[in-house]
Amino acid sequence: MVASGVFAGAFTRDWAVAREDREGVTFGAALDSIGYRGPESCGRHPLSAFFELHIEQGPILEAEEKEVGIVTGVQGMRWYEVTVTGESAHTGATPMRLRKNALLGAARLVERINAIAERHKPDALGAVGLMEVRPNSRNVVPGEVRFSVDLRHISDAKLDAMEAMLGEACARLGRESGLTFDVQLATSYPTVQFHPDCVSAVRKATQSLGYKHIDIVSGAGHDACYINRVAPTAMIFVPCEGGISHNEIENAKPEDLAAGCDVLLSAIVERAAS
Amino acid sequence: MVASGVFAGAFTRDWAVAREDREGVTFGAALDSIGYRGPESCGRHPLSAFFELHIEQGPILEAEEKEVGIVTGVQGMRWYEVTVTGESAHTGATPMRLRKNALLGAARLVERINAIAERHKPDALGAVGLMEVRPNSRNVVPGEVRFSVDLRHISDAKLDAMEAMLGEACARLGRESGLTFDVQLATSYPTVQFHPDCVSAVRKATQSLGYKHIDIVSGAGHDACYINRVAPTAMIFVPCEGGISHNEIENAKPEDLAAGCDVLLSAIVERAAS
Repeated sequence: MVASGVFAGAFTRDWAVAREDREGVTFGAALDSIGYRGPESCGRHPLSAFFELHIEQGPILEAEEKEVGIVTGVQGMRWYEVTVTGESAHTGATPMRLRKNALLGAARLVERINAIAERHKPDALGAVGLMEVRPNSRNVVPGEVRFSVDLRHISDAKLDAMEAMLGEACARLGRESGLTFDVQLATSYPTVQFHPDCVSAVRKATQSLGYKHIDIVSGAGHDACYINRVAPTAMIFVPCEGGISHNEIENAKPEDLAAGCDVLLSAIVERAAS
Repeated sequence: MVASGVFAGAFTRDWAVAREDREGVTFGAALDSIGYRGPESCGRHPLSAFFELHIEQGPILEAEEKEVGIVTGVQGMRWYEVTVTGESAHTGATPMRLRKNALLGAARLVERINAIAERHKPDALGAVGLMEVRPNSRNVVPGEVRFSVDLRHISDAKLDAMEAMLGEACARLGRESGLTFDVQLATSYPTVQFHPDCVSAVRKATQSLGYKHIDIVSGAGHDACYINRVAPTAMIFVPCEGGISHNEIENAKPEDLAAGCDVLLSAIVERAAS
């Protein structure tokens, strides 16, 4: 999404070409090496509309047996970095009452994060995906646990409420346990609402072609999120097997991909004619 | 404890010298390289008694303001390897109801393990020290979590009861969550009771020298655990700062070390005279 971000003015071109991969190769150098760094300035192409077709990257369309998802927007996402600090101690020699077990505190917060998402269902998501335990030894009570928190919702106000509950849960667990809970917001993407006329064009195309469909909110970010800032935008989803993506076993049925292309073409024609 | 294990017949000499360090150097080769592999057979020295002096490696003596711990035995220890299996899934695109979050299941078991130890207090210990989350990515619901469980008690029967509760907790969490919980016993050390006459010799020595003392059960394993199988054995503990050991900041007061040596000498004299 770096290129669409530059196109939409979210990032500068200088920032983008200076990005480095794990080997230290910049985005600009990689473009030069394949002759793709052109002379045109970026973002100077006015668009009358933008439509993006994508696999869902989730299991909803497959579970609901639909062929097309009419994407009305993209949910907001916030990532936090949490550090729980206690005291490393020998598991054999330290009585329970003298322990400050950071992993026990982290485990309780994982449970609360799940409860926060369940409290705001059906449109809330919450999970801990990454966790590092220190010193991570089988006979040491963990003294520090660091982990990421991923909260998502289709409403920014609800995300604010979830964030407040996360803070309260940390404060309460800290008081009860004697552990320290530090929470830092690391990344935040606001919710995106696609252009009503473009969404309407996708809906009309899908209905007139007779595909089984539902409205859906994207859980993942897409180029369309940035382009939506500078041009009327919408998206079309098609099912993918098991909701799996970014993985070599990613798979989508040819007939579903054909349906997506069919809707994309008709939506563009619909929009162009309006 | 490899050498004392060979001495007491718990391991063969061949097994011991074949042990490798992280660089692949065997114990036998390391002994040869410093000229320490002698010609005598191991375990052929009958001992009339064995006394071991050690820092506590825990915080109890310091917290109780005692100078000497009369070690009556060593608690039993069991290590388990647990694997919780769910399904990796995109955190943005997978609704809560379709998730099989292995880290949420692991977190709940961490809480139960703590509760099992609290149920059997004051002599029970329980913790998870080591945990690996897979794939361990901030935007993927974890599909697999592996972790160690450390349970300890001064009674083998209570350890059996704690092990049964661990199994029941896994079965219940598995039924409630749709996750798979696999538990394997990895290591088991039975409880050790030191020889009453040797413990009595330590107690008499401590009392006659006038040191502040308590009876204590060792949480960690020691050479004395193995030697206790072939000779009358006891141990003496002295406090260490913050209960910290196996760490560069490990520290003990000179006067406490002197007290320990004093008790060691007197206990040996007491035992020899009896």
